[in-house]
Amino acid sequence: MTTETARLNDVNIEAVGALVGAIQQDSKKADTVWKAEVSWKGGFASEAQIREFAPIPSDEPSGLGGTDTAPNPVEQLLGALGNCLVVGYAANATVAGIELTDLRIEVEGDVDLTTFLGLGAGHAGYDSIRVKVHLKSDAGPAAIDELHSAVIASSPVGHTLLRPIPVDIELAAHPLAGEQ
Amino acid sequence: MTTETARLNDVNIEAVGALVGAIQQDSKKADTVWKAEVSWKGGFASEAQIREFAPIPSDEPSGLGGTDTAPNPVEQLLGALGNCLVVGYAANATVAGIELTDLRIEVEGDVDLTTFLGLGAGHAGYDSIRVKVHLKSDAGPAAIDELHSAVIASSPVGHTLLRPIPVDIELAAHPLAGEQ
Repeated sequence: MTTETARLNDVNIEAVGALVGAIQQDSKKADTVWKAEVSWKGGFASEAQIREFAPIPSDEPSGLGGTDTAPNPVEQLLGALGNCLVVGYAANATVAGIELTDLRIEVEGDVDLTTFLGLGAGHAGYDSIRVKVHLKSDAGPAAIDELHSAVIASSPVGHTLLRPIPVDIELAAHPLAGEQ
Repeated sequence: MTTETARLNDVNIEAVGALVGAIQQDSKKADTVWKAEVSWKGGFASEAQIREFAPIPSDEPSGLGGTDTAPNPVEQLLGALGNCLVVGYAANATVAGIELTDLRIEVEGDVDLTTFLGLGAGHAGYDSIRVKVHLKSDAGPAAIDELHSAVIASSPVGHTLLRPIPVDIELAAHPLAGEQ
């Protein structure tokens, strides 16, 4: 249908196509497991190790008791959402033959600290998250609207936030046993 | 009640106490807004800028069409959860007078790529997330169980995942207008 090359938007759409083909042959290939390992560095500082990459540092602002050396976890969550939406726009634009010339995404959200600080029971997380997408393209408005809808319908981090996800948090073993 | 100093677990619990006092005087001080700004770098690569910190790089593995230079967004989400839980354990342990000697958190989750890849409508996000907390402390099992419960009851990122959050994603302006 389209005439884009593998270089449209610098996206390797052929690799995506190969994965799609593999999943069409064997639906189990769609099942993926992702991991992070987080190490405490004292105070409210920590690092998230993901595969072989440089760890993602974390801290809290000084007003929240941290040493303010890195983005805090709720900020990292917003970054993950924006980074995920970028992949969605780049992938879906490329499939549709739309060239993006610029893409910048602003993400913000509101947290009421009452529950986190132990001042009351309730919801400790984001009450709402707002995303503003700035994109540049010569594609027409109908194509851009279709692109936007496709991204919202398929965003892994977006859907993880929009829907309740079972999160099972357990202590690995009795800490008195010197569990490492 | 307890005799810990401000240095227990290297946590500046006095700063947290000052914030708690300020919120008890004026509940509006519990309302916080957090932000990230994400810039596309071509292909599936991007960076999340948070305040003045070094940006958090993002990419996808080559099998998913990326250039595999950084953790991908769904991995970043798991890192944010683990980093958030660290703050929860460190803060609540310190308030309870519990010394933590080590803390390491493994996070993993399952994503079915079917929806992300456009092979079907449905849930594109995590189906489930599992967290294993390895902590070392001389505190007794009852105190550790209480600590664990307090963390789960008050985790901002944990609650954001466990509950459906309104996420409003909009295009900033018509892209044909050359919106920057």
